[in-house]
Amino acid sequence: MQTTSSGSAKASGKAVYFFSAGDTDGNAQMKNMLGGKGANLAEMTSLGIPVPPGFTISTEMCQAFFESGEALPKSLVLSIEEALAKVEAKIGKKFGDKKNPLLVSVRSGARASMPGMMDTILNLGLNDETVEGLALASGNPRFAWDSYRRFIQMYSDVVMGMNSSFLEVAMEDMKDEKGYKFDTDLTADDLKKLVANFKKQVADSTGQKFPTDPKEQLWGSITAVFKSWNTARAIAYRQMHSIPASWGTAVNIQAMVFGNMGDDSATGVAFTRNPSNGLKEFYGEYLVNAQGEDVVAGIRTPVPVLASEAKLAGIVGESLEERMPAVFKELVATYQKLEKHYRDMQDMEFTVERGKLWMLQTRTGKRTAKAALKIACDMIDEKLISEEEALLRLDPKSLDQLLHPTLDPKAKKTVLTKALPASPGGATGKLVFSSEEAVDMKERGEKVILARIETSPEDILGMAAAQGILTSRGGMTSHAAVVARGMGKCCVAGAGEIGIDYNLQTLRVNGYVLKKGDIVTLDGSSGEVFLGEVKMVEPELSGEFDRIMKLADAKRTMGVRANADTPKDATTARSYGAEGIGLCRTEHMFFGADRITAVREMIVAETKSEREVALEKLLPMQRSDFLELFKTMKGYPVTIRLLDPPLHEFVPHSDEEIRDLAKTLEMDFDKLRNRVRALHEFNPMLGHRGCRLAITYPEIYQMQTRAIAEAAAELVKSGMSLIPEVMIPLIGTAKELEILRELSEKEIKTVQRETGVKFDYLIGTMIELPRAALTADEIAVTADFFSFGTNDLTQTALGLSRDDSGRFLSTYVNEGIYKVDPFVSIDQVGVGKLVTMAVKLGRDVKKDLKVGVCGEHGGDPDSISFFQSAGLDYVSCSPYRVPIARLAAAQSAIISKSGGKAGSGMH
Amino acid sequence: MQTTSSGSAKASGKAVYFFSAGDTDGNAQMKNMLGGKGANLAEMTSLGIPVPPGFTISTEMCQAFFESGEALPKSLVLSIEEALAKVEAKIGKKFGDKKNPLLVSVRSGARASMPGMMDTILNLGLNDETVEGLALASGNPRFAWDSYRRFIQMYSDVVMGMNSSFLEVAMEDMKDEKGYKFDTDLTADDLKKLVANFKKQVADSTGQKFPTDPKEQLWGSITAVFKSWNTARAIAYRQMHSIPASWGTAVNIQAMVFGNMGDDSATGVAFTRNPSNGLKEFYGEYLVNAQGEDVVAGIRTPVPVLASEAKLAGIVGESLEERMPAVFKELVATYQKLEKHYRDMQDMEFTVERGKLWMLQTRTGKRTAKAALKIACDMIDEKLISEEEALLRLDPKSLDQLLHPTLDPKAKKTVLTKALPASPGGATGKLVFSSEEAVDMKERGEKVILARIETSPEDILGMAAAQGILTSRGGMTSHAAVVARGMGKCCVAGAGEIGIDYNLQTLRVNGYVLKKGDIVTLDGSSGEVFLGEVKMVEPELSGEFDRIMKLADAKRTMGVRANADTPKDATTARSYGAEGIGLCRTEHMFFGADRITAVREMIVAETKSEREVALEKLLPMQRSDFLELFKTMKGYPVTIRLLDPPLHEFVPHSDEEIRDLAKTLEMDFDKLRNRVRALHEFNPMLGHRGCRLAITYPEIYQMQTRAIAEAAAELVKSGMSLIPEVMIPLIGTAKELEILRELSEKEIKTVQRETGVKFDYLIGTMIELPRAALTADEIAVTADFFSFGTNDLTQTALGLSRDDSGRFLSTYVNEGIYKVDPFVSIDQVGVGKLVTMAVKLGRDVKKDLKVGVCGEHGGDPDSISFFQSAGLDYVSCSPYRVPIARLAAAQSAIISKSGGKAGSGMH
Repeated sequence: MQTTSSGSAKASGKAVYFFSAGDTDGNAQMKNMLGGKGANLAEMTSLGIPVPPGFTISTEMCQAFFESGEALPKSLVLSIEEALAKVEAKIGKKFGDKKNPLLVSVRSGARASMPGMMDTILNLGLNDETVEGLALASGNPRFAWDSYRRFIQMYSDVVMGMNSSFLEVAMEDMKDEKGYKFDTDLTADDLKKLVANFKKQVADSTGQKFPTDPKEQLWGSITAVFKSWNTARAIAYRQMHSIPASWGTAVNIQAMVFGNMGDDSATGVAFTRNPSNGLKEFYGEYLVNAQGEDVVAGIRTPVPVLASEAKLAGIVGESLEERMPAVFKELVATYQKLEKHYRDMQDMEFTVERGKLWMLQTRTGKRTAKAALKIACDMIDEKLISEEEALLRLDPKSLDQLLHPTLDPKAKKTVLTKALPASPGGATGKLVFSSEEAVDMKERGEKVILARIETSPEDILGMAAAQGILTSRGGMTSHAAVVARGMGKCCVAGAGEIGIDYNLQTLRVNGYVLKKGDIVTLDGSSGEVFLGEVKMVEPELSGEFDRIMKLADAKRTMGVRANADTPKDATTARSYGAEGIGLCRTEHMFFGADRITAVREMIVAETKSEREVALEKLLPMQRSDFLELFKTMKGYPVTIRLLDPPLHEFVPHSDEEIRDLAKTLEMDFDKLRNRVRALHEFNPMLGHRGCRLAITYPEIYQMQTRAIAEAAAELVKSGMSLIPEVMIPLIGTAKELEILRELSEKEIKTVQRETGVKFDYLIGTMIELPRAALTADEIAVTADFFSFGTNDLTQTALGLSRDDSGRFLSTYVNEGIYKVDPFVSIDQVGVGKLVTMAVKLGRDVKKDLKVGVCGEHGGDPDSISFFQSAGLDYVSCSPYRVPIARLAAAQSAIISKSGGKAGSGMH
Repeated sequence: MQTTSSGSAKASGKAVYFFSAGDTDGNAQMKNMLGGKGANLAEMTSLGIPVPPGFTISTEMCQAFFESGEALPKSLVLSIEEALAKVEAKIGKKFGDKKNPLLVSVRSGARASMPGMMDTILNLGLNDETVEGLALASGNPRFAWDSYRRFIQMYSDVVMGMNSSFLEVAMEDMKDEKGYKFDTDLTADDLKKLVANFKKQVADSTGQKFPTDPKEQLWGSITAVFKSWNTARAIAYRQMHSIPASWGTAVNIQAMVFGNMGDDSATGVAFTRNPSNGLKEFYGEYLVNAQGEDVVAGIRTPVPVLASEAKLAGIVGESLEERMPAVFKELVATYQKLEKHYRDMQDMEFTVERGKLWMLQTRTGKRTAKAALKIACDMIDEKLISEEEALLRLDPKSLDQLLHPTLDPKAKKTVLTKALPASPGGATGKLVFSSEEAVDMKERGEKVILARIETSPEDILGMAAAQGILTSRGGMTSHAAVVARGMGKCCVAGAGEIGIDYNLQTLRVNGYVLKKGDIVTLDGSSGEVFLGEVKMVEPELSGEFDRIMKLADAKRTMGVRANADTPKDATTARSYGAEGIGLCRTEHMFFGADRITAVREMIVAETKSEREVALEKLLPMQRSDFLELFKTMKGYPVTIRLLDPPLHEFVPHSDEEIRDLAKTLEMDFDKLRNRVRALHEFNPMLGHRGCRLAITYPEIYQMQTRAIAEAAAELVKSGMSLIPEVMIPLIGTAKELEILRELSEKEIKTVQRETGVKFDYLIGTMIELPRAALTADEIAVTADFFSFGTNDLTQTALGLSRDDSGRFLSTYVNEGIYKVDPFVSIDQVGVGKLVTMAVKLGRDVKKDLKVGVCGEHGGDPDSISFFQSAGLDYVSCSPYRVPIARLAAAQSAIISKSGGKAGSGMH
């Protein structure tokens, strides 16, 4: 054992916190020190709930451990030995005792939940002598040797770094030899031989004898748990969830209780409310004669705790309610106590050892977005929590899963199988059988369904890349199900009729044989799997959704608009509560089949007059575009961005296409090809685009402004109240805006004179270049509003092309250079500084300058909380993100009002 | 006449300033109000120098004129009439008098010299009646009618906007008809007829009668001069020279004196010192019986003022000294008075009217760089000016002309002709015959020689685009010569043996017929023109150059380094006084024929180990690169930038080349092509380059750092004192630098351990992304130095690709959006703000942080003065710009010390 006397210099709390009925050091508030699991074990114990006694090594010891070069500080070792003695006293067993040995579990427990990310060791304290004591004390030698067998497997894997499949093979060999079908067929004697075999294999494979000293086992396990904080997968998970490495993990050492001591024993997982739909009903799954790992790993498919639930699944007499009514009653009383105490839905682990209920863990339960809304509303009504609390508890990003299309019930479908509806929503994609494949194909722009026998933490990236996840084993609380719900991804789990062959890369189901690349569709709400693609329909939102949205609207102070280019987008945006259009990209209108030719004619024009002829053709089309958009938005503000992309984006590039275009335009092929080539740019992002187009070809913006003005005039004449907002992109200097404002204003006034209709209008600019932010005071003089184009501002401030950064961005996130992808969540330190600076400079000149954001960050909750603190008036995002933005804006406003710092997830 | 009573609200001075012996309102200090010419006319008059009486309309009236919608304010008209009456009284003639009429000149005169940019009208006041009076008073009817003819030509062109070639044709027709060869053959009667013809043509062409009322002529001329402030060419000139539009021009109205009253009259231009070599000798050219325009326009080739100079040119008895010794004596006395008074070399215009000398203008004379240095040194020695004054008067940019190669005297040459050495230096290029062509070919990367019969202000852009200028007409003070010297461009003028045919696009000379595109070489120092390309040699610098450079070094506070990639560059840099290398671009070393294959092997490697094999081959080559560089720099600091450009810049892109490479590398063609294609980027400027390469492929920087360390170790071992500086490019976050600093430091320490040699080293970063500047405090923690890469910082801050902005940058400069090309002179408001911010943030964290600049702005005087005020420690620029930077840095330090604001040319 490696120990050190230094390393705990920075520790401010105790090294070890004890918990046992009537003698508990910690509480639920001490998550930072005890981790989530440790804090809740302490809290539960204090509440008088039956929890096996134990103690928690504080998270500060994890830092001390790493600072000491991965050694256990000496003082810690002493504290642990002291606490262990107390556990022995409480439970009346002794660690390493040959007659009635104390066994313990060693579990990780960080401040934030990191499901399945770190290591656990059970049954610790067994050796060739204590196993006999356990057999004696339990009167069940088979149980004792099976526990020992499990311990060796777990310990050799986690602590000794051995490939555990060797031991699995040895066990399978024995089963074959004996003609057994199930693990449970193995007798105590078989297991005894297996243990001997296991120990030999461990020695052969690792070169080390399996440790027989329980203390040595303990130090090894604690060391392994600390180390598991820094495994690649834990680091990846932390980065995905913005958890700082400095937090560290606590280690919980707790007396073992056994759910596998026979048919009067069991283990299970339960939720105080239904995590899938939020209904206020107790919900759980359990397995008789099993250890907790058997439930979570999804190796055996568990049975509902409630008789009613079991019955729905066609299972009779097997529920906990039916098999162990007394235990069930105590469990119900416990869950009610816990939920009332924690004021939130709880996810609990329990074990029944020979008829006695033990609670092993409670924590806030993960839930689907639908359930979260239902629970929030119910808890407000139950007066359990305030409206603000209810809003703050919801994860805005999770609303996404409610807004995505589901399968059209009227569509024709070929059902392949039906399994557990593990995470709602619909998904279609090509079948893949490995996470690597899923990631690869996603990168190639393909939509995939990841099909696995079961999933494990190694599959996290593959699951994130997939549209949906399908497993052939495991329940509603299996890894696949829990993770998919967290990601808001559709998942169908435990599809036992399916046979997946990783080698052949095939999926067999009810006579069908599907290969990699074949398309399937999942319905995560019904559990069905369909052949091919199935039509999807827009989601219908629940009453709770509306209620929460209205609550959010009442609390938020920032406006929420949508980025929408078409009346269809605008309709969607309105239906999700957008209060205007913050960005209408006019160029998207240019690609219509009826107008692209005129657009190209405009682009290849060699003289101003040729260009004007083409623009003349576009004018009525653009006018009707804007007319429809204004009509749809019924007087809500509409910000129209004038032409932005470089012109070469509109022309074809292959000789063949150019030849066709030359024919259409009656132009010489070579001349046209030269013109197209002349448009080529080395760095189009930094090239001839945005307002630069209008500085060289003013007639383009003239036409667009005229179209806007004519549309506005027509509607104002017919009685609509309307203030069009003209937005000039890519402004870098005040002078550009001066020139183009004058140009636009002149055109609008001309239209007003021609039509005799007066209307107000705003002319503003995007702030999307660092120079614009740096000189926002100069620009504000001529601008009625600013709208931050944070996509381009990120590209230029970071010198990072969104199109090209793919090949190194993941390395950047993995290495912790970027905490998150800066195109997903705004880089507050760098780009954010430009935003804050520009708001201040702009408002110094123009106190009431309207300032918004229309980059994709406008729909990202962390970014929204930043925008709140930066003083923005509104955010604009894609229509589907509008509800997310409404909730995130409300949360930001609540936090900001309470004096808290916005931007919870950012560091 | 359009007048207005408003518009002079903002005027703070008088509208009109009178000047005449003993009665002068202005002085030389009043340039802002009177313009350069007006202020000097007033000053000269006050000095007792013979100046024809007159008055100056102040520059404020120019603003008033434009603010009143191009009308003359009424109060101004009254002031002018008053001043005119005073002139009449002084000179004893009356404006419009039929017997002895007062004629006046109307000339522009802005605060800064804008040679030939604006309009002038002479002989104003002539009509059919006053011309007879002039004939009578002068006793020379031919002169009177010729003056009238000239007046009509000038007025109809300048004021009435008529195409003056109609009148020229009429005159040529008459000469043909009469069988005359020269204009001077025309008799008084001929000219009388011509005047009648002219007036008819003016009426026909413009639809307006030529004005006969002298007052109407006067208002028209003043209006035209004001308007000429805003002609396209004047605006272009202002923008090229950073002259604000708000300055406006003054108008000088002055009694006419005539150099064309016969052989006792003359007109000329003189310099108090030789403007070409700076020798302290009087220097001038004049023409007998001519008006000033004849000299400047270069239509007749003038004769030296000094007998000795004339003799050298093979002219005897024709100099002013010989023909008019008394006038010459007075002129000498006058020039000495003027130079002593103004304490600088003067450029004077004079006219002799019937034996009486009149000074029409004096101003600081333009001079070649060589002359400027000589004059500066002489004037220090003469105790006329202080060292600081001498340094401040020199234009750093002009040093450029001293540093460029000249023709190799030993090279074989075919002389085509010899003419005037109008502007020194050598130039080789393809012949073009129009300015448009020169600009076009320059844009296509061609070097051109612009050949013109004579040049005019319209040729400015063409001259700027050309390597050198060749004219077949005009003297040393012709437009071509003056402008070329100002630009520091080689020019051979007045090559009378040459026949240029614009239509045939040919140049005939001594039996040769050259076509457009043929190559010629000019020697601007000898006046020779050679066929084809002639070998050039490095310039030898004069003693004055060294003296001034040493003076500059003594005064400046910023260091000056050079950007140099090879020992050859480094040698040049050292010879120009560079105190180190501020930027060695290692990638330039990668293109050597002996290493490009290994570089490509490294790039297309698919695994780290393959890459390492290729890098292993590059290591010894890079080591010897650095060894040579360090040796050349003899212990001066050398900053080595690790690999920066995207990898695709090193690989071939055509199928054929890829096939060759595949063969060389023994790789599959398709595989290689795919790898090359995979390297393609949409915006390589913002792509996978700089330190990003090393984040993904650390082994590249490892190899480079090792090469640096091994080279340093070898030299340190041999006794050299050396501190290598490793520079990491494209840092955007502190974390990148932390990772790469650790990587580099580890490698250096390994080499130190291996070699047993210890040496100091610096590891720093370029600041070339806005985010780096914004977070410079975080980055400074890990950086030993900052070096601003202002090229890329400009590209990202402005969102402007240097490669792509060509198509709109000129529009941007013309429209005044950018005052100057931001890649030539740093954008102080935007990019400069980032620089200032980064310096402050960096030094807040690390008080003594060394900060330099290595972008091309490091050699631009205006940028250098900005860098001085931003507190930079050094600038680094191309070797040829080192002297410019030394002088500019000295000027900045002097200005900064005196509390003045640096950045004279920027607004």
